[in-house]
Amino acid sequence: MKNIPKILVIDVDGVMTTGQFIYSKNGKEYKIFGPHDTDGLDILKKKIKIIFVTADKKGLAISKRRIETDLGYKLFLVNHHDRYKFIQKYGMKKVIYIGDGYHDAQILKDVLFAIAPKNARIEAKKTANFITNSNSGEGAILDAAIKINRKFF
Amino acid sequence: MKNIPKILVIDVDGVMTTGQFIYSKNGKEYKIFGPHDTDGLDILKKKIKIIFVTADKKGLAISKRRIETDLGYKLFLVNHHDRYKFIQKYGMKKVIYIGDGYHDAQILKDVLFAIAPKNARIEAKKTANFITNSNSGEGAILDAAIKINRKFF
Amino acid sequence: MKNIPKILVIDVDGVMTTGQFIYSKNGKEYKIFGPHDTDGLDILKKKIKIIFVTADKKGLAISKRRIETDLGYKLFLVNHHDRYKFIQKYGMKKVIYIGDGYHDAQILKDVLFAIAPKNARIEAKKTANFITNSNSGEGAILDAAIKINRKFF
Amino acid sequence: MKNIPKILVIDVDGVMTTGQFIYSKNGKEYKIFGPHDTDGLDILKKKIKIIFVTADKKGLAISKRRIETDLGYKLFLVNHHDRYKFIQKYGMKKVIYIGDGYHDAQILKDVLFAIAPKNARIEAKKTANFITNSNSGEGAILDAAIKINRKFF
Repeated sequence: MKNIPKILVIDVDGVMTTGQFIYSKNGKEYKIFGPHDTDGLDILKKKIKIIFVTADKKGLAISKRRIETDLGYKLFLVNHHDRYKFIQKYGMKKVIYIGDGYHDAQILKDVLFAIAPKNARIEAKKTANFITNSNSGEGAILDAAIKINRKFF
Repeated sequence: MKNIPKILVIDVDGVMTTGQFIYSKNGKEYKIFGPHDTDGLDILKKKIKIIFVTADKKGLAISKRRIETDLGYKLFLVNHHDRYKFIQKYGMKKVIYIGDGYHDAQILKDVLFAIAPKNARIEAKKTANFITNSNSGEGAILDAAIKINRKFF
Repeated sequence: MKNIPKILVIDVDGVMTTGQFIYSKNGKEYKIFGPHDTDGLDILKKKIKIIFVTADKKGLAISKRRIETDLGYKLFLVNHHDRYKFIQKYGMKKVIYIGDGYHDAQILKDVLFAIAPKNARIEAKKTANFITNSNSGEGAILDAAIKINRKFF
Repeated sequence: MKNIPKILVIDVDGVMTTGQFIYSKNGKEYKIFGPHDTDGLDILKKKIKIIFVTADKKGLAISKRRIETDLGYKLFLVNHHDRYKFIQKYGMKKVIYIGDGYHDAQILKDVLFAIAPKNARIEAKKTANFITNSNSGEGAILDAAIKINRKFF
C-alpha cells in the first residue's frame, strides 16, 4: 500500500524567506518573503494539512505576522534539537517536509517525502527527494506544491 | 490588417518589483523597485495607454505610492480570478500584457503580445511571446519597452 | 600628447548602489550601497577630483546622506537630459565617467575613459571602455578605481 | 610540530553580512545577515576562541547588536590600517582569519589558515587557503566552520 502523506511541514527561514535577516541597531527587524508561494499553498491547502516551523526565536514575531496573521497557517517554534521529535509525533512516513538547513538533513532523510530549495545547504539537498528549481524567497514553495500535487494527489 | 495594440497592462509585483516582500512584525512594509524601468515607461507613454494591475491587497498602499503618486500611472487592484476578465474588457487582441505569475499564463497566451521577465515563473515564460533579458526589479520593463517600441511603433 | 583625466564623474544609482529602491507606503525610503567602494575611492581621491551625479530627485536625500555627509564628496542633481551638457563643461576628453543607464550611452562614448558596471544596461556597456568585474553595489567602484589607477597614474 | 590555531578572527561586513548597507536619508540603517552561520559558530565555539572585527564605524551599533547582543561574541572596531597589527598580537601562526576585502589580502597571506567567502574581492581570494562554496550572508561561515573543524579538530 502506498504511503499517503497526512501533513506538510514547512520550515519558514530559508524556505519561505531568502533566509536573511535585516538588522538595525535595534535588532532583527525584517525578513524577506518571496513571490509565488501563496499560489503554491493555495494548490495544496484543501488536500493536506499544512503547518510551519521555525527555530528563530528573535524573529518569531516577524514570521508569525506573515505565516499566522497574513496567510492563516499555524506556526510552531521548534529548535533544531527538538525538531526531529516534533516531526516524529506525526509519524515520519506520514510527513512531507520542506527544509533548507544543516540540521534538517536527518529529517529530510527519514520523512515520506523531502524537499529542499535550490539554495538550501548542500547537506539538506543531499538527503532530499526533490530539489526545487527556484531559490527560497523566489518561488520554491510553488515548485514544491506543483511537485507534491502531481505525486500524491 | 495588422493588430494594433491599444493598451499596455503591467503587473506590478514581480515585474516592476523583485517580487519580494520585506516583512516586519507589523506586516508587509516594503517592496523593492528597480532601476531603468522609468526610462522604459518614458519611451512608450506617448505612444500607448499604460495601466498597472496588482493582486496584492496587503501591499496595495506601497504599490500605489510608487505607481500612482510617484510615477503617475493608474493602478488597479485585480485578483488572479478576475484578471482574465479584466483584460478581456479591453479586447484580448488589443492588449500587450507583462506578467510573471503562475496565473498569468492563460492571459499571456491569449493577448496580442505577451512579455514575461527573465525571472518569471516557468508557466508564464512558456506562453509569453518575449522574455526580457533582465530580471524584474533589474530593468525588465526597459527591455520590454524597447521590444514593444521596435515591434509596434 | 596623452590626454590626462582631470575629473572622475560617478553616477550614484546603479553604480554606487544596486540601482534598486526600497519603497514603503510613504515612498522611496532606502537604497542599497555596497562594500569595497570606499577602498576604491581612497585609491583615487588624492590623484583626481571626484564628483558624483544623480538623476533621482525623490531619493536625493538618501544619496546626499551617503555621498556628501558620510563619504565627503560633492553630489550634483543632474537629470538625463542635462547630463551630457553638464559633463561637457569639464571638457569631454578630460573626464572619466562611470555610468550604468540607457541615457549614459552617449556620454560613455564621448568621454576620455568610460566605465560601466557589470550589471549596467547593455546600451551603456556597448559604449564603455571598461566593464567592471563586479556588479554595482558589490564592488564595481573598487574595480574601476584599480583600472583607472593602473591606466592613468 | 603542527601549528595549532588559538583564535578564529572573523571580519563582520562581507563575511557575516552580504557586505551591503541599506541607507535612508538618516544614514546607514541596516545590514543583511545570513542564514546557517550560527550553525557554523556552534560547531566551533567550544573548540576555539572566536572574535569578530569590523572597520565600519558608522554601522558599528548594527554589528554590535548582531554579534555581541544577539550572538554573544566580542566585536572589535579595528580599521584597515591597524588590522594587521591587531592580528599580529595573537601571533600570525596562531590565527585563523576570515576576511573578504582588498586590505585583508596581506593578513590572509600571513596567518596560519585563511578563508575568504566566495564573493570576496579577488585580491582576498588570491591569498586565501580556502574559499567557501557559499557567498557571504548565504552561509559562508558554516562552510568555513565545517572546513576548520575537519582540518584542525
